This record gives sequence, structure tokens and C-alpha cells, in this order.
Amino acid sequence: MKIALLGYGTVGRGVDEIVSARVPQVEVSRILELPDRLTDPRMTSSYEEILADASVELVVECMGGVEPAHTYIMAALAAGKNVVTSNKAVVAAHFGEFADAARATGASLYIEASVGGGIPWIASIEKVRRVDDVTSFSGIMNGTTNYIVDAMRRDGADFDEVLARAQEMGYAERDPSADVDGIDVLNKTIITASVAFGVACEKGLPASGIRNLRLSDLELFAAHGRTVKLLGRGVSRDGRYAAAVEPVAVAADSLEAAVPSNFNLVTLDATTVGELRFYGQGAGSLPTGNAIVQDVLDCATGARRPVYDFSRGLAYDPSLLRADYVYRTSASIGGGEYAPGAVLVRDLTAQAARALLDEALVTDPTTFMAALS
Amino acid sequence: MKIALLGYGTVGRGVDEIVSARVPQVEVSRILELPDRLTDPRMTSSYEEILADASVELVVECMGGVEPAHTYIMAALAAGKNVVTSNKAVVAAHFGEFADAARATGASLYIEASVGGGIPWIASIEKVRRVDDVTSFSGIMNGTTNYIVDAMRRDGADFDEVLARAQEMGYAERDPSADVDGIDVLNKTIITASVAFGVACEKGLPASGIRNLRLSDLELFAAHGRTVKLLGRGVSRDGRYAAAVEPVAVAADSLEAAVPSNFNLVTLDATTVGELRFYGQGAGSLPTGNAIVQDVLDCATGARRPVYDFSRGLAYDPSLLRADYVYRTSASIGGGEYAPGAVLVRDLTAQAARALLDEALVTDPTTFMAALS
Repeated sequence: MKIALLGYGTVGRGVDEIVSARVPQVEVSRILELPDRLTDPRMTSSYEEILADASVELVVECMGGVEPAHTYIMAALAAGKNVVTSNKAVVAAHFGEFADAARATGASLYIEASVGGGIPWIASIEKVRRVDDVTSFSGIMNGTTNYIVDAMRRDGADFDEVLARAQEMGYAERDPSADVDGIDVLNKTIITASVAFGVACEKGLPASGIRNLRLSDLELFAAHGRTVKLLGRGVSRDGRYAAAVEPVAVAADSLEAAVPSNFNLVTLDATTVGELRFYGQGAGSLPTGNAIVQDVLDCATGARRPVYDFSRGLAYDPSLLRADYVYRTSASIGGGEYAPGAVLVRDLTAQAARALLDEALVTDPTTFMAALS
Repeated sequence: MKIALLGYGTVGRGVDEIVSARVPQVEVSRILELPDRLTDPRMTSSYEEILADASVELVVECMGGVEPAHTYIMAALAAGKNVVTSNKAVVAAHFGEFADAARATGASLYIEASVGGGIPWIASIEKVRRVDDVTSFSGIMNGTTNYIVDAMRRDGADFDEVLARAQEMGYAERDPSADVDGIDVLNKTIITASVAFGVACEKGLPASGIRNLRLSDLELFAAHGRTVKLLGRGVSRDGRYAAAVEPVAVAADSLEAAVPSNFNLVTLDATTVGELRFYGQGAGSLPTGNAIVQDVLDCATGARRPVYDFSRGLAYDPSLLRADYVYRTSASIGGGEYAPGAVLVRDLTAQAARALLDEALVTDPTTFMAALS
């Protein structure tokens, strides 16, 4: 099967490398690149040329960002070409539109690489759903923030120092907002909820990150037998669902606590199979490239033709996701004492907890909040 | 698709329950049972009748044990019927023979449920191998022994007490040998190595269990920041492989250490995807039934038609699997002191370590051995 790569950054090169070394039945015949970077005879800067090439059955979008990725994916699906993408931002923003476009022409959309890197997460959820209902999911879905928290805890270093080191090692972007504010995890949570529950998610799901996490917060939770992990979570029952992203103070002997460095761990619960967990490299050119190549092979062999349908109309119900929350803040927000300088507020929805965090941040912009698992 | 169940114990009933509640495209049309237990119109005690029923496209063997399961599976494959089995003993003993028989008639053999219960382990290894070479695997593959070690550690109870409790709760058999002596894990290790490396395994791979584990051994390792888990492991490189089953003293902050109760955790390492780990219920009627139903659906939809080929002729080379070993023994076997009453013997192959254990057991039948991870 002939495929085209849109973008030739780290991920695109990873796909090209894996395909040429290990997958003889697939050929990367076209690559979309900027006009001043056409260093390979397969490269073109004209997307129209790729669209018009009938021999290209599948387009791999690995440019990142919402535009022009969104326009390119829609054009490929409209032309009946299958699409594989690793781009969580564009899928989270336009999943329903892509699903409709794919169904209209019979093309397939493959998004394994958009969540969990090399972990076979999306395909596993789809497989589970052949037999079971997925009742909940949760996961460490962002390697950068896991690396930061893990290194803070292991080395006794503070947030800024570890973030700077992560940036040097290429684990974090120069602008770390998408990672440390939970935006990347929110995109992955939206995609996971869509696949797991069959719903086009509500805009504005509650999300907070670890920007305000201090070493002293980790020490505070350690004294209670806990450590902090940034988790994306979702629940569905009785035709309703909720989802959120927030730091969670997990038990020190939990599997989440044991996840080192920049690894990911994602968990689902389902009717008959029970709890399933998947662990692996959530990023990197080869693991992400591998997930893309697996999607390409699923398409080439016909092993998997995902059809996404969000017409079930699941209602968003924030009351499904509740926990006790700890706020380390100097703001007066009620609650009882959890530790000196930190209060415990019981039985909040994730949405109410995020609203209370916003309130606390007005008075104390250093406030850190975590749910108790 | 019409299927027949061979055996209607816990697993068979689980499959029947899941299929009738959740999988309308599959029908359990025949069930093989003992002549005095024919309580359902679908039941027969004649396997010939099932074989002769051309409408039955697939046979699910969930009787357990080597015979008559082996004969029944061979007869089904010879008749061109697809076979799904959860029976690790029969697959470990006859995998090569089954693979040849399946290839001869174009039938398919599905064995997901034989390792790791509801965890999609076998299908995931096969998927990984479409792109990568699997270079190693390891795992907690037996829920009973994980439950025993976990309960000993959490409750400060000794082996016999916890084993008795596990037997009461139905987590352990009345004769616990297959679990506590590592035989069950050996079968699963053989099957995993066969699928991961493409090899019909050597008979007599080194295997030892946890029968001699005492609470004081766990305390001894805890003082060194470790806990004990029973692991099946395998390695392959340069056209050679090794595999073994043994207790391993893992780091207290490792993912293995965090696996609670009777859960399983299985890990593989592969060329481009790196390390992948899978966690879930390794036994139980619904998780195992789920794995069987997933295999049935893979067959019904054509999503997966496993073809096993062990003709590559990988050589068994025990030197690939080496570690440092701790022996708690009063026998004189050399080595340096690890702790009072326990010696450390460095850089042994798993095979040499098992031989040294046999030597120590002659003098001190209570000897316990664990590899250092």
C-alpha cells in the first residue's frame, strides 16, 4: 500500500524509518514538506498533488496543531482516502466532524498514536467495546509532567529546576503550558472518552495542571502516604458521562505511583473483563511512529476499520466524578485542616473543585489543588 | 456464527453468559458435558456429534488438563473447525502439533485465554510482531501466588496461613502444586515464548516456585528495599533464546511490587515500540470468558487469523538469562553473605541457579531462592 506523510518532523521521520526498515508491504511514496525543505524526491509542497494521486490510499498526518491539519484531514476523508493521525489537538477539536466525513465516503480514520504513544490504547478500547461497556478510565497520559513529578520526588528538586532540565533533555517544550497546565492531557481525555463512551465531549471540561506544584507539596502528601500524579479521568453510567483532568494524590503503593520517568499508564474498567491497564512510552519518534505504522497495517490488512458514532447523545453530568480535594493555599475557602497550610474539602465534583481552585487563585496565585484518589 | 463449548465448568459458563448477554452475532449451539450432567437441550456427551455438526464452525475447549483436550483439539482442527482454548497445560505441551494441524486444514487456533486471563496479551504480542522483534518478556502470570505473597506482606502472615485462606476463597486449588511450584507459570512462559519468539520451546526449562517462601524471607528482602514476585521470563537475540520461571526479588518501587491481590502484570520489550506492559485479572470466569469471546469474535469477523510457525529453529541458550541469586539456606553452597542465613551467588544462569537450588535442597529442604532483578 502506498501512503503519504504530511509533515516530516520527528514523528514523520520515525514512521519513514520504521516502514522502510520493517514493513515491506507499505511504501511511503509522497511526503508533504515546506517549499524550502524539499530534500527527497518523494517530497512536494503541494497537498493538492498528493490528494490527486490515486495511488495514495492513506494519508498520515503528523504535522501537529489544528490548522492546516484539520483542513487537510477533511480533504483526504472527502476524497475517500484513509487517514492516520497522531495529532491529539486536531482530533480533540474536530473528532465528530472527522467521524461524519469518514462515514460519508467509507474512508477510515485511525487515531491510535494520538493518545499514549506506542501503547495500543485506542485499539484496545475499541476491542473491549465489542463485548463490554467501558464504565470508567483514568491515566497518566503525559510523559513530561510524569517526568517532572518523578524527578522532583526522586531528586528532592523543585518544579522550576526540573522543568528546566526536562526542557534541556527535550522532554518538555520551550513553552511548557500545554503539558504543565493539563491541556495535552485534556485533549487525550476528550479523545479517550469519545472512543470509550461513544460521545462527542462537552467543551470546557474541568482541567487543571501541575504548574503550582512545589516540592513541599510532594513532601506534604508523602507524609500522608501519597504522591501526586496528573490524571485524565472519565466515568459513564446510565446514559450519562463526566470527564476531567486534575492532579491526584494517589497511594504511594499504587501502580500509578510506581510509573517512572516519562512513561504513561492508562486504565479502563469494563463490564466483564474488569480492570485493564496499559503501560508504555507515551511519546518519542519510534513509539509514536510504531503506533502510526500499526494503524497503517490495520488499514492495509483490513484487520480494523474503526467507525466512530457519537449520535448516542450521552448527557454530560459532572456529578458522576466526585472526590475529596486538598488545597494548599493561603486563601480562605473553608474545609478542614489536612496539613499546616493545606485544607481538605470533602465530596466535590471535579467541576466544583476546579471552580473553587479558581476562587483560591484570586487571593493566592500559588494555590495547588489535588484530588484524593 | 455457531460455536460449541467443550466443558461447562466456571469458564464454560462464563463464556455462555457473556455470549448470550452481549454478543448477538454468536450462538452457543452445542455443549459437551458428562452423560450425567445433560441439563440443557444444547448438551451432548458425544464429541463425535459435535464434530459431525457442519453448522458448528468453532469449538471452544475449556475442559482443562491434557487429555482428552489434546485429542479433541486435534480432531477439531483436522475437521477444519477453528479452535479457541483457555487450556495452558495442553497448549504448552502440544503447541507445535496444534500449529501444524491448523496450517494443514486452514483452521485457526486461538489461545488468548491461556495466558493472563482477560489481558489481551497473546493478540498484543502478535500485533507487536507485525512490526517489531520481541527481545524479551517477563511477568506476574499467576494470580494465586501473587495473592499469597501480597497477603503475606500486607498482613504479616506466613505462607501456610495465607495459602489456607486462598484455598477457602477459591483463589487456590486444594492441591496447590501447579501454582506454588511454578508449573502453571512455566506453561504460560512456554506459550508466551512460543508466540513472542516463534519457537517450540525446549522441554525442561528451569522453573522454581514459592513453596518455601517464609515471612522472614520477605522481611529479609524488605530490609534490602525489595519484595518477592514469581516471574516467568524469556529473552531472545541472535537466533537464540532462553526462558525460565523463578522467584525474583524486585525493587520495592517497581511496578511489579505494586501489583496487588490476584492481578497479573506482563511486560514485553520490542525493537521500536520499546517497553509495553499489560495488567489485569489473570483468572476468573468473566475475565477468562471475555478473552475467549474476544478470540471467537476475532475469528467471526476475520480480524485476526493467527498462524503459528515454529520452523525458524531458534536455539536454546541458557546463557542469555543471567542474574545474581540469593539463597536462604543452611546448606554450604559458597557465595558471599547477603543477610544472616542467606548467601549471594553472583552471575548465574537461571539454569545453573536452579541446579544449585536442587543441591541446597538436599541438605536443607526449606531452602528458598530468588533472583535479584
